[in-house]
Amino acid sequence: MRVAIIGGSGYAGGELMRLLLKHPQTEIKYVTSRKLTGKPVTVVNPNLDGLTSLKYVMPNIDLVTKDVDVVFLATPHGESQTLVPGLLEKGVRIIDLSADFRLKNLKAYEYFYGQHSCPSLCNDAVYGMPEVNKEKIKTARIIAVPGCHASSAIYGLLPVVKAGLIKPFPIIVDSKTGSTGAGSSPSEADHHPVRANVVRPYGLTGHRHTAEIEETIAPHFDNADKEIMKVSFSAHAVDMVRGILSTIHVFFKQKPEDEKPIYKAFREFIKDNPFLRFVKKQAGVFRLPDPKTIVGTNYCDIGFEVDPLSDRLVIVTALDNLVKGAAGNAIQCYNIIQGLPETTGLDQIGIFPI
Amino acid sequence: MRVAIIGGSGYAGGELMRLLLKHPQTEIKYVTSRKLTGKPVTVVNPNLDGLTSLKYVMPNIDLVTKDVDVVFLATPHGESQTLVPGLLEKGVRIIDLSADFRLKNLKAYEYFYGQHSCPSLCNDAVYGMPEVNKEKIKTARIIAVPGCHASSAIYGLLPVVKAGLIKPFPIIVDSKTGSTGAGSSPSEADHHPVRANVVRPYGLTGHRHTAEIEETIAPHFDNADKEIMKVSFSAHAVDMVRGILSTIHVFFKQKPEDEKPIYKAFREFIKDNPFLRFVKKQAGVFRLPDPKTIVGTNYCDIGFEVDPLSDRLVIVTALDNLVKGAAGNAIQCYNIIQGLPETTGLDQIGIFPI
Amino acid sequence: MRVAIIGGSGYAGGELMRLLLKHPQTEIKYVTSRKLTGKPVTVVNPNLDGLTSLKYVMPNIDLVTKDVDVVFLATPHGESQTLVPGLLEKGVRIIDLSADFRLKNLKAYEYFYGQHSCPSLCNDAVYGMPEVNKEKIKTARIIAVPGCHASSAIYGLLPVVKAGLIKPFPIIVDSKTGSTGAGSSPSEADHHPVRANVVRPYGLTGHRHTAEIEETIAPHFDNADKEIMKVSFSAHAVDMVRGILSTIHVFFKQKPEDEKPIYKAFREFIKDNPFLRFVKKQAGVFRLPDPKTIVGTNYCDIGFEVDPLSDRLVIVTALDNLVKGAAGNAIQCYNIIQGLPETTGLDQIGIFPI
Amino acid sequence: MRVAIIGGSGYAGGELMRLLLKHPQTEIKYVTSRKLTGKPVTVVNPNLDGLTSLKYVMPNIDLVTKDVDVVFLATPHGESQTLVPGLLEKGVRIIDLSADFRLKNLKAYEYFYGQHSCPSLCNDAVYGMPEVNKEKIKTARIIAVPGCHASSAIYGLLPVVKAGLIKPFPIIVDSKTGSTGAGSSPSEADHHPVRANVVRPYGLTGHRHTAEIEETIAPHFDNADKEIMKVSFSAHAVDMVRGILSTIHVFFKQKPEDEKPIYKAFREFIKDNPFLRFVKKQAGVFRLPDPKTIVGTNYCDIGFEVDPLSDRLVIVTALDNLVKGAAGNAIQCYNIIQGLPETTGLDQIGIFPI
Repeated sequence: MRVAIIGGSGYAGGELMRLLLKHPQTEIKYVTSRKLTGKPVTVVNPNLDGLTSLKYVMPNIDLVTKDVDVVFLATPHGESQTLVPGLLEKGVRIIDLSADFRLKNLKAYEYFYGQHSCPSLCNDAVYGMPEVNKEKIKTARIIAVPGCHASSAIYGLLPVVKAGLIKPFPIIVDSKTGSTGAGSSPSEADHHPVRANVVRPYGLTGHRHTAEIEETIAPHFDNADKEIMKVSFSAHAVDMVRGILSTIHVFFKQKPEDEKPIYKAFREFIKDNPFLRFVKKQAGVFRLPDPKTIVGTNYCDIGFEVDPLSDRLVIVTALDNLVKGAAGNAIQCYNIIQGLPETTGLDQIGIFPI
Repeated sequence: MRVAIIGGSGYAGGELMRLLLKHPQTEIKYVTSRKLTGKPVTVVNPNLDGLTSLKYVMPNIDLVTKDVDVVFLATPHGESQTLVPGLLEKGVRIIDLSADFRLKNLKAYEYFYGQHSCPSLCNDAVYGMPEVNKEKIKTARIIAVPGCHASSAIYGLLPVVKAGLIKPFPIIVDSKTGSTGAGSSPSEADHHPVRANVVRPYGLTGHRHTAEIEETIAPHFDNADKEIMKVSFSAHAVDMVRGILSTIHVFFKQKPEDEKPIYKAFREFIKDNPFLRFVKKQAGVFRLPDPKTIVGTNYCDIGFEVDPLSDRLVIVTALDNLVKGAAGNAIQCYNIIQGLPETTGLDQIGIFPI
Repeated sequence: MRVAIIGGSGYAGGELMRLLLKHPQTEIKYVTSRKLTGKPVTVVNPNLDGLTSLKYVMPNIDLVTKDVDVVFLATPHGESQTLVPGLLEKGVRIIDLSADFRLKNLKAYEYFYGQHSCPSLCNDAVYGMPEVNKEKIKTARIIAVPGCHASSAIYGLLPVVKAGLIKPFPIIVDSKTGSTGAGSSPSEADHHPVRANVVRPYGLTGHRHTAEIEETIAPHFDNADKEIMKVSFSAHAVDMVRGILSTIHVFFKQKPEDEKPIYKAFREFIKDNPFLRFVKKQAGVFRLPDPKTIVGTNYCDIGFEVDPLSDRLVIVTALDNLVKGAAGNAIQCYNIIQGLPETTGLDQIGIFPI
Repeated sequence: MRVAIIGGSGYAGGELMRLLLKHPQTEIKYVTSRKLTGKPVTVVNPNLDGLTSLKYVMPNIDLVTKDVDVVFLATPHGESQTLVPGLLEKGVRIIDLSADFRLKNLKAYEYFYGQHSCPSLCNDAVYGMPEVNKEKIKTARIIAVPGCHASSAIYGLLPVVKAGLIKPFPIIVDSKTGSTGAGSSPSEADHHPVRANVVRPYGLTGHRHTAEIEETIAPHFDNADKEIMKVSFSAHAVDMVRGILSTIHVFFKQKPEDEKPIYKAFREFIKDNPFLRFVKKQAGVFRLPDPKTIVGTNYCDIGFEVDPLSDRLVIVTALDNLVKGAAGNAIQCYNIIQGLPETTGLDQIGIFPI
């Protein structure tokens, strides 16, 4: 299959290239960047030195859809919606890594992102979470790749929500994330001297990904619970380049006598999903997820602890924001629409220690 | 005044020396260490090179109380209680940085730490939080310096609890801490290759400091609330040497119409306490606490955000676990018992950026 | 092919597993560890969770050579030499990652490492640097994988030494290395609080790898130069987990009029060696090697700058100490003895940014 | 005394404030910043929160010299020379942290920095290194504070050059530096994701500070040696916010039989200079300089090792680029011109571990 990447000069674009260059059934035909047109992609991706002769081209729709089956959009929020109608006309399938087509609830979209320029297409789009929407992804014309924080929350919450174990309120998601999450453009907030050694609260309330999380888990609560369900999300920047750890504090409807129902809920959810990995006891060794062990891979590690002193259940998830939180998950969707095994080109092993 | 430091080879001991060497009214007479007896203290405190000729001595009670007014105990949990009775006989006043005398509730002590060898002395001891117990500290024979995590939680919670603003349940404290919190003894968990780049959940439930936090805030709830009050504490290791950021998720009894009552609660609490610093809006610039800006100082910075989409109030506090969370706070207590200004010897300015 | 790894609980052992588990023609039959016998290898290699069911076994020679073709020794220096004679009797081929069989000059061996227990076997061993000894490796019974610092120096020096461009003295190699270089056993020097944020000179003179470097480059100087040739090596620990950057300061015999002869020397050396990568100008963008871009891969990146104000040539090399500096290079040798393409199982792309 | 700081929004300006706010005999009257005029200085110096009410003003010469005795220039290279003539007319004394007045050799100035707009004033200026020019500093109208890399090289080299111990060529200075050295303006090179975890060679040859080093040490070589003397400087960026470690590789004229002459050379140089600290053996413990232990202080730590296998002497120095390498040294000069003890306001103890 032949693909194009629009908006390929950022970190998600670089990651799509890193992974697709080794993907057995794929040829990257075009990678676009306005500001780097004509330059080799290795200019901003030194890791690809010697491995590709691709050069950036202008994001011209006629050009980049020629002989192309799938287009990956790694464009900033708000820009994808201006490109999608034109791309659809060309008959390509679209995997959009931006937030533009993630939400069905347009009110929520407007609250968090502003006016949408092609709201009618939002219903066409499929939320690209393979563990939730595998069937729909197969035939979707537009796949909206979930936000990195949203994925880290949903993979932790959905198993216990589906199993009816937890209360709809409060649901606290306390996330810690690396600096690539803020993108590749230099800024005062991410200048090394001020960004190193921080534990900086940056999105304690009102985080945009809240809407995705709520939209994904809500259907699995009963009607009464749905009314009062509320996800309380807070994000923190820590001194790390890649990775998200989400600590999810939730409360049992009825505290189970032992941990079996919780194990069961997670095992059930994980069983056909090759990139969700449950880490807990093993040979007597207790371990919890940590982004350190999954950097560069498409895994999301999941674990939990039951508070012995209250009805609290603490779930933790770890993923690489640029892989399972963006490019890797996009390629997993791509594999699904191609009818390939989901793991094709995504079987990297984590590097440890790193 | 002349002081001795028992257990001076660890990080808290080193920090006591760093601060007391510049303290205008103090002479450090003795610093003890079994394993380093006879060696200069600079062997494990290279920052003190050329600034002191102190050598470690054996922790002999007769010796280290000679001509000494105050003894700082920087000993491991469980060891202070074996030393305190003997020290009291010598007539010295004791400032204990361990957990041994922090709790009044002996049941809680036993649950978290095991049997206490001199429980009768626990009632004599004063919980050494100047912002809470200033008067009692003045005359205390035993001052129990609060735990670093406990302090970071209490400084955030107490103002709004006292003001009657928040519900007694749930109270979620999600802390992120540096590696000095684990002490100075090498371990597999803190070996640099495995400890660097982590966001590692390590005390998601059952953290010992929970008891201190509850014991300190409980009296400020009314009786009905006291029954259901519960602090849910979780700790994470991040890639940082010093510092704690605690993110405290609590819920309003009744959400206020604007932020004024919250500001008032914090300002009230902070007003006579020189080391609590409220950081929020200033000249139109919004800022939240971050350990990065207070490392090496005795400040605890406090800020908050009200969730526009729920009844949640998110409070964040930042302090240096070895200073306001240990040695600095101990010296603040020492100043109080000496009748000195609380800030004596503790007026370091943070280094930025660092 | 079937292989065994002796001494598999350290970082080199973990890295051999990470790479061999994806190696298409290889089955890992045994991995030994005295202290972890019976435990799954994932206990100390969380990145392998779910990817292998291997468990550590005792390092019993009869056992671990059964149905095994090649044995990798990831044992501490001094231990390989006690195992090699017994292993050779079993007819396996040996790839030794320790220093035991790297030197031909026994005097140098004794100076740096002490007495050797089977000196006669040293001549049998081949220094396992594919770029230097490809032919000899094919038939070697014992392959001694070069030291990580030595490799980083040799890949920078050998091209210009072979081309006759530089003086035999002085040759300054100033290396900066990550913490995995010190091994997986906790120590005071590598305890996170004291190892983070360092730039710590730790082997300014007398570094053991000096002997390997000299032994490898000496034959390419003429006799007069050989007499005065001397490599001056200094190592520094920096705050990084993996990677070595070596800065090599050498002096031209006769400063060339332009950079062509230098480019030629490097291109010549690199041409049949898939893991040496020359990074310099590209599309007008100037770049120099940095471990950051090659972590987890088997590349050694090489670049240089000519000092416009003196006869100095500065060469820099970057490699991952655990991959091209240990396990990756060992597998490259393994591929050569198997008659496989050198890159088999070693085609990982670097992760950027990381 | 009353002082003004021109160009106070960068890191050197922030550091001058941190130190001068605690300086016992000093009042900061004005701090200028074009872009931040009217804003409190705490906007970019959160560490000063609550400690000052200073606001940035425009860099108007009439204004900022009113009732001011000394003006600190923390302006970019090239800008100081446009301000100095006007400031001199106002009768203030100038302490310039930029490179504009460091060099006497105008040819070297032009080679590294371009045309100078008031070359005649260069001879008036005194190179502000207290350990070299204490007497001249007392009466200087313009003090040119040395470059941070230059200081780190000179403090290591000058003792052994003055003692006649080393050859004039080669002199290799291999420096490793933190990210504050690149200033406070965001850039692609210093964006956290690309700057974290690096060991990046960035000024291998042709570094501007070379000229200062040569100009300062040259007079201490005899005439023949002066001709061939050459300093070969190379700089590397490492993952650290503050600090420089310079590794200086030099060669003995005649290797001494023991280390006594070297100790003597350093002790001689250091003796009346309170901020040079010789670290080596102490109570049997061997230690070498490391920026980690001096961050935030005005110390430059110095140590050495003699290569047992050659005539090489390796000297290492560590300092904080923003303190002894900039603002701290500027204040030390300020103390000298005021007739105060050099250590006034500069007696901070390093924080360890940090």
